[in-house]
Amino acid sequence: MNRVERHACFGGRQEVWKHPSAALGCEMRFGVYLPPAAVAGERCPVLYWLAGLTCNEQTFITKAGAQEHAARHGLILVAPDTSPRGAGVPNVDSYDLGEGAGFYVNATQAPWSQHYRMQDYVAQELPALVEQQFPCTEARGIFGHSMGGHGALITALRNPGRYRSVSAFAPVVAPSQVPWGSKAFAAYLGEDREAWKEWDAVELIASAGERLPLLVDQGDSDEFLSKQLRPELLEQACAAAGHSLTLRRHPGYDHSYYFIASFIGDHLAHHAASLR
Amino acid sequence: MNRVERHACFGGRQEVWKHPSAALGCEMRFGVYLPPAAVAGERCPVLYWLAGLTCNEQTFITKAGAQEHAARHGLILVAPDTSPRGAGVPNVDSYDLGEGAGFYVNATQAPWSQHYRMQDYVAQELPALVEQQFPCTEARGIFGHSMGGHGALITALRNPGRYRSVSAFAPVVAPSQVPWGSKAFAAYLGEDREAWKEWDAVELIASAGERLPLLVDQGDSDEFLSKQLRPELLEQACAAAGHSLTLRRHPGYDHSYYFIASFIGDHLAHHAASLR
Repeated sequence: MNRVERHACFGGRQEVWKHPSAALGCEMRFGVYLPPAAVAGERCPVLYWLAGLTCNEQTFITKAGAQEHAARHGLILVAPDTSPRGAGVPNVDSYDLGEGAGFYVNATQAPWSQHYRMQDYVAQELPALVEQQFPCTEARGIFGHSMGGHGALITALRNPGRYRSVSAFAPVVAPSQVPWGSKAFAAYLGEDREAWKEWDAVELIASAGERLPLLVDQGDSDEFLSKQLRPELLEQACAAAGHSLTLRRHPGYDHSYYFIASFIGDHLAHHAASLR
Repeated sequence: MNRVERHACFGGRQEVWKHPSAALGCEMRFGVYLPPAAVAGERCPVLYWLAGLTCNEQTFITKAGAQEHAARHGLILVAPDTSPRGAGVPNVDSYDLGEGAGFYVNATQAPWSQHYRMQDYVAQELPALVEQQFPCTEARGIFGHSMGGHGALITALRNPGRYRSVSAFAPVVAPSQVPWGSKAFAAYLGEDREAWKEWDAVELIASAGERLPLLVDQGDSDEFLSKQLRPELLEQACAAAGHSLTLRRHPGYDHSYYFIASFIGDHLAHHAASLR
């Protein structure tokens, strides 16, 4: 691993690292914020952020304003890229498939299956690298936005015991039932919709092996609300399964990082309560 | 004026507007944050941010994390672009001259003098537009970063009585004495260095008609510290003139928006104390 950026930030350090990924077969970058406690050598919990369509490892670290809160709570923040990238990695000319649109699944279909193994990367390879390099405790949380909100929910639901906290901003809760998810899943996972269920939060909630309480924030002026996000499907699934869900609908807020920044402090507090 | 973006943000609204500029002879954009008090119709003071080289009206509003503090203090934030732009506007292939590098002066030399009148724009035309469109009091503050820190200092010093508060992050304090400023001033103002003095904060401090206290933050790991910024020249000028200066040197901080975000709350509090 090589560090490519280092900036003092709220008494800690915002860094960017690059490394060869075995899971993805390409070089990957991630952002890591080390709070003052970690800079001083204290082991801290790690909170993983999964970003949305078109984003990369820079988006969250430059726009969300999370470092101030991570500094106060003593949380390490890790923000990976949203897909494999670069020479040899399959791609198409589309914002919602291929590069920038990994959907945090392990693809099974050609030409995607060799590189697009983002679930292995975010749930296994990246935490192992992070926990080797930085002063971490074993407490992990995960959250994300939109496609990355979907990623956070499925990653927590698929890995009982691995995370202590989970939350999401404007997540794609039922990818199998909406255009973004259907397009990506058909490409990455094939046409058999049975295979999609293990990557769909609303499907996974029914039989979850662990019931971490969910915090979900959603703007009611989000331009993707009714077609792509459909939080009511998560509400129904949680109610049916007895899964704790705090779904906050915020009047006037849209899908942007202005929405995320406005409520990021609440999410950091939510995670800190379980992680510290 | 036309609004081109509107986002709910910390209970208020982050907007972007575009308008034809008479001073600059082109279309210009600026960001404006309206705190909850302004959205509710209450008149609020306006704090102007001047950004640095290569930036535009998006940089501050997406990266600085100022809205949270502006919401709490009830301040309107206005963030213009850093130069005229577009078809018919002179430009060169350089990051520190032409587009993105207006230096907040009124150019007197061809080919720049027709469009590069950023001082008229930020000190006169833009405030008049803002005060017509939004619920503003007559209290104005101004701050900025790097080239925009220079801009904030000279704009306050050249316009006694027009601003109630001023501050800067890593400002170019003596453009006449450093490479960035010498290159820009030679192009925009000509080779006669006498003409540069009215655009140089260190020169203006000696005979300032008003002595607003200055708050300046500077990272001591700033890559431009000794060659372009030289805060010791401002210290000397303020000491000689009896001008109040709070210069804070922050160990380990660089020139980035991670530095700005880390201390933006202190600057908003500084301005709010004079503006509200």
